[in-house]
Amino acid sequence: MAQNIYDNPDFFAGYSQLPRQQLGLDGAPEWPAIRAMLPSLRGKRVVDLGCGFGWASRWMREQGAASVLGLDLSQKMLERARRDTHDPAIEYRSADLDQLQLPPAAFDLAYSALTFHYVQDFARLLRTLAQALAPGGHLVFTVEHPIYMAAAHPQWFKDADGRPTWPVNGYANEGERRTDWFAKGVLKYHRTLASTLNTLIDAGLRINRVEEFAPSAEQVAAMPSLAEERERPMMLLVAAQR
Amino acid sequence: MAQNIYDNPDFFAGYSQLPRQQLGLDGAPEWPAIRAMLPSLRGKRVVDLGCGFGWASRWMREQGAASVLGLDLSQKMLERARRDTHDPAIEYRSADLDQLQLPPAAFDLAYSALTFHYVQDFARLLRTLAQALAPGGHLVFTVEHPIYMAAAHPQWFKDADGRPTWPVNGYANEGERRTDWFAKGVLKYHRTLASTLNTLIDAGLRINRVEEFAPSAEQVAAMPSLAEERERPMMLLVAAQR
Repeated sequence: MAQNIYDNPDFFAGYSQLPRQQLGLDGAPEWPAIRAMLPSLRGKRVVDLGCGFGWASRWMREQGAASVLGLDLSQKMLERARRDTHDPAIEYRSADLDQLQLPPAAFDLAYSALTFHYVQDFARLLRTLAQALAPGGHLVFTVEHPIYMAAAHPQWFKDADGRPTWPVNGYANEGERRTDWFAKGVLKYHRTLASTLNTLIDAGLRINRVEEFAPSAEQVAAMPSLAEERERPMMLLVAAQR
Repeated sequence: MAQNIYDNPDFFAGYSQLPRQQLGLDGAPEWPAIRAMLPSLRGKRVVDLGCGFGWASRWMREQGAASVLGLDLSQKMLERARRDTHDPAIEYRSADLDQLQLPPAAFDLAYSALTFHYVQDFARLLRTLAQALAPGGHLVFTVEHPIYMAAAHPQWFKDADGRPTWPVNGYANEGERRTDWFAKGVLKYHRTLASTLNTLIDAGLRINRVEEFAPSAEQVAAMPSLAEERERPMMLLVAAQR
């Protein structure tokens, strides 16, 4: 079962202040890269796994999606998503992705942003999603990159030239990682990149695209603090298809 | 054009002493993982890109391959491969993989071990290989992992707990990397993992399996120095299919 850290008051208060929560999709530097991986949304039946405040669910409807089912474990996030959404074709529902059940062939797109690293049993979830997609249906998701998550002490340091450098250890040891991020002991699950991709393949999905998000020169010029994100991969973006 | 470092006398002398060159395939801890990714070899027409001393070329014939074409840039390696091989169905030929041309649909398996990171134009090579494979044909290859190659100073250090830790920087900046390995200034080309996989997909290949080699508990017990290879991914293994 996934940890419900988002309903922790300290976590929620801090998390809600992130640019990507204040500004919505355009507050996330990886959003243009995600958009480029999405299929046409017109007429699509979408499930948004870890929908949070509903930013992506609403955007997908604006792009012509026929319906969106937004799922999240956090009651606080679902409350605000419902408050901010006035669209009968968007439904928000409480769900633990480690227990998820979905009807067969009910969706044309499964989308998830920065949520799957909280899921303990990724193989189970992928089997559930694969059968819930119509033939030809798409899965597009982002997770924290395993290189970002692996180390016991995931913190920048300087190399001999003073360059920001990221530490990697424990990469092959999959499983729980605890970090302090707005709250103590946030629980994530480390999986190697190979393991993530092979789990998709084993679930019967074809890999269409893989991206390790790095900001463009234009993005770094507009926000110099992003430069570090060219030093090590922070996010993994994957597009797959049934 | 790829650098021909293998014909440098210092490099060749050092390289020839590696366990994997002295002992052949069983001297490479990743060999069991590669074997698990290979299709049945019976009757297959194989091209072995970067064949070196011919260990894999000969093994593939023992497994029933119909023919093997071994390609290498190094004259010294080809000389020894020819000397050690007595099999008219194995041909060794000099080739720069950056200039390679192969006839269409002439092979059922393209295999390459720890060679593609010397290739400058990976997209060109992959297009060449994709058209040289018969429909359904397989590509199985290993390269140095981009996490292993990326940093300006790719050297172990100890984290705050004294644990062996690997540095990563410059990951998003693809291109030349120079290292000193048996000779000064060995030239390799860094590509992100995503870039490697997308190049395969763009060449029309389907990704069947991805492995980031890490030694098993049994391997570490038999050779304790391998334990470090569980800390960071050193090799990337990919199986794809036309």
